[in-house]
Amino acid sequence: MTKDELFSIKISEPDGEIYRKSKDKWDSIAKPIDGLGYFEDMVCRMAAIHGNISPTLEQKSVIIMCADNGVFEEGVSQTSQRVTRDVAELMGEKKSSVGIMCGKYPIDFQVYDVGINSDDTPVGVIDAKIRRGTANFLKEPAMDEKECLEAIETGIRAVKKCRDRGCGIIATGEMGIGNTTTSTALLCALKGLDPMNYTGKGAGLTESGLARKIVVIQQGIKLYRGEKAGQEVTLGSEALEILRSLGGLDIAGLTGVFIGGAIYHVPIVIDGLISAVAALVAKMLVPGCQWYIFASHKGREKGMEIILEELGLKPIFHADLALGEGTGAVMLFPLLDMTMALYQGGTFFGDTQIDQYERFDR
Amino acid sequence: MTKDELFSIKISEPDGEIYRKSKDKWDSIAKPIDGLGYFEDMVCRMAAIHGNISPTLEQKSVIIMCADNGVFEEGVSQTSQRVTRDVAELMGEKKSSVGIMCGKYPIDFQVYDVGINSDDTPVGVIDAKIRRGTANFLKEPAMDEKECLEAIETGIRAVKKCRDRGCGIIATGEMGIGNTTTSTALLCALKGLDPMNYTGKGAGLTESGLARKIVVIQQGIKLYRGEKAGQEVTLGSEALEILRSLGGLDIAGLTGVFIGGAIYHVPIVIDGLISAVAALVAKMLVPGCQWYIFASHKGREKGMEIILEELGLKPIFHADLALGEGTGAVMLFPLLDMTMALYQGGTFFGDTQIDQYERFDR
Repeated sequence: MTKDELFSIKISEPDGEIYRKSKDKWDSIAKPIDGLGYFEDMVCRMAAIHGNISPTLEQKSVIIMCADNGVFEEGVSQTSQRVTRDVAELMGEKKSSVGIMCGKYPIDFQVYDVGINSDDTPVGVIDAKIRRGTANFLKEPAMDEKECLEAIETGIRAVKKCRDRGCGIIATGEMGIGNTTTSTALLCALKGLDPMNYTGKGAGLTESGLARKIVVIQQGIKLYRGEKAGQEVTLGSEALEILRSLGGLDIAGLTGVFIGGAIYHVPIVIDGLISAVAALVAKMLVPGCQWYIFASHKGREKGMEIILEELGLKPIFHADLALGEGTGAVMLFPLLDMTMALYQGGTFFGDTQIDQYERFDR
Repeated sequence: MTKDELFSIKISEPDGEIYRKSKDKWDSIAKPIDGLGYFEDMVCRMAAIHGNISPTLEQKSVIIMCADNGVFEEGVSQTSQRVTRDVAELMGEKKSSVGIMCGKYPIDFQVYDVGINSDDTPVGVIDAKIRRGTANFLKEPAMDEKECLEAIETGIRAVKKCRDRGCGIIATGEMGIGNTTTSTALLCALKGLDPMNYTGKGAGLTESGLARKIVVIQQGIKLYRGEKAGQEVTLGSEALEILRSLGGLDIAGLTGVFIGGAIYHVPIVIDGLISAVAALVAKMLVPGCQWYIFASHKGREKGMEIILEELGLKPIFHADLALGEGTGAVMLFPLLDMTMALYQGGTFFGDTQIDQYERFDR
């Protein structure tokens, strides 16, 4: 995909008429008005996205992007870089945390190697390796523009494949040592924020490790933004340049997943900070993507709140999650099943002796 | 059960040593430290309650207490009182919202009629009717002390029955037109709060309906608390008196469920405001009950926050739920299953080439 092709993508708005019909259906089910709160809105939005008052959400996927980050060598993580490949291998066997948590829950796993720093791609993982890890962004841009666009395209195509197999909703996940550093750098560069206030401990750092991580992020932003550090980015072309300079192949791949969701009308669920940053980038590169994006949890990393607010989303879980791999996003699925069971099979007021509640707010 | 018997109940603390062992087990699973956030603490607490590092949480129940409230005649609800019985009937057939949401999810439904204002108890509902609805608390105390104790005892026995059948965790639910009025009155009377700030619209009220509800609650509190209105209650005997005067048989029944959980070492999950108030009363009547209580969602009704804080609990869902019936509480169950799948079947660091993360916070 070329830059021009990326920036010429147009996103159509989900069907507002179907949203309203879906809400009317909720109101006709024997329960208090808006009783299921955000879950009702969630289903209405998904109906509008599918263009069908009865969205088909039984088949679900999780797309996990795995890649290594060159900035790892600056000592921003507690573990060795090899962990990315080791966990990806577990993912391929469904023995990593997200695989085990889903257990008997029927979910289609799509694990992509878009840039693990290894010769091979583990069994069960899709080989879409673009390079063996990015460069250390303190030395040179993490990747070149062509590589970045290739990762985005991989994400878009991943959504198309899932949709073609009948998947109605996709959760995002990632694995990549150092990716809370890259995603925090991206967030701060894009929104003009001070990394001092938005850098977290990722998978676990000492206080001195955290201080080092903050300095690395500050230096990275200074390097690529210069005098513009502290200014909010509005242009898509600038966002792309920041993504390729400070980001990772995992984030670029997930950016593609969010764009793909908007192109192919599949709701995409954010997990933690890394996928949230990818969602933010997707909205900046291709306006309208946000209509197709859903929040799951608030996460422990700072910065989540500002992104979700920007995307107009409210997190459902506040559980201090910080596991990654898409674990928080897939936790939304059984709740969506429960919600859809009521939406599709609920008892209507008309079938009971109970009068429908009146809506006094419109 | 007599008052003396109630106040002589002693609750033992869950096993702290097992809590710590359970936390160590979490740390040995190949994932970032505290990665599953509140869910890790939840499992540790349940392990400590069961007195077993591997708590048996497969079998789950929901106990739903249904009753009518005399204060209904003051016009504090949009619907007719008959709705309590109609919904209880749907519950008995598993066709009410909570039944449909659980659908294929294996859960043991226990619906109790502790005081529906009807001659009969619907099919599928357990007949434990104490009286046909409470009295209007603006005219006389909602119930007498004996009736209140009987409802509490019903709740305690309900937990024992579930536990004897192998149930490892119980969600609470309720149905009773007018019960956001009774529970708000109870909360404000017990904590010395101004109903103006804590009264919500329940299942849907106009602004004038809400104003009327506030006045009714204010008058009720004045009637039974007199000069003590605005003062926080600390004595169990006073809490019992307020429960029987302003509360409902559903709330008293759920209070018993929370006490029963503490007696029989079964974790009990709060749903919305009504069960939260019951949990608060349980803690006041029988100190220590709070160790056995779990939060699910934040709910739309005001007042939830103050109760959960008092109980030392944090809600997992923030989804503006206001359905009742235990719907929010049962939504915790599939997430607990996912969490337990990782806890019981997770890959240990020791089985991989990955080094265990170090904990720098202790």
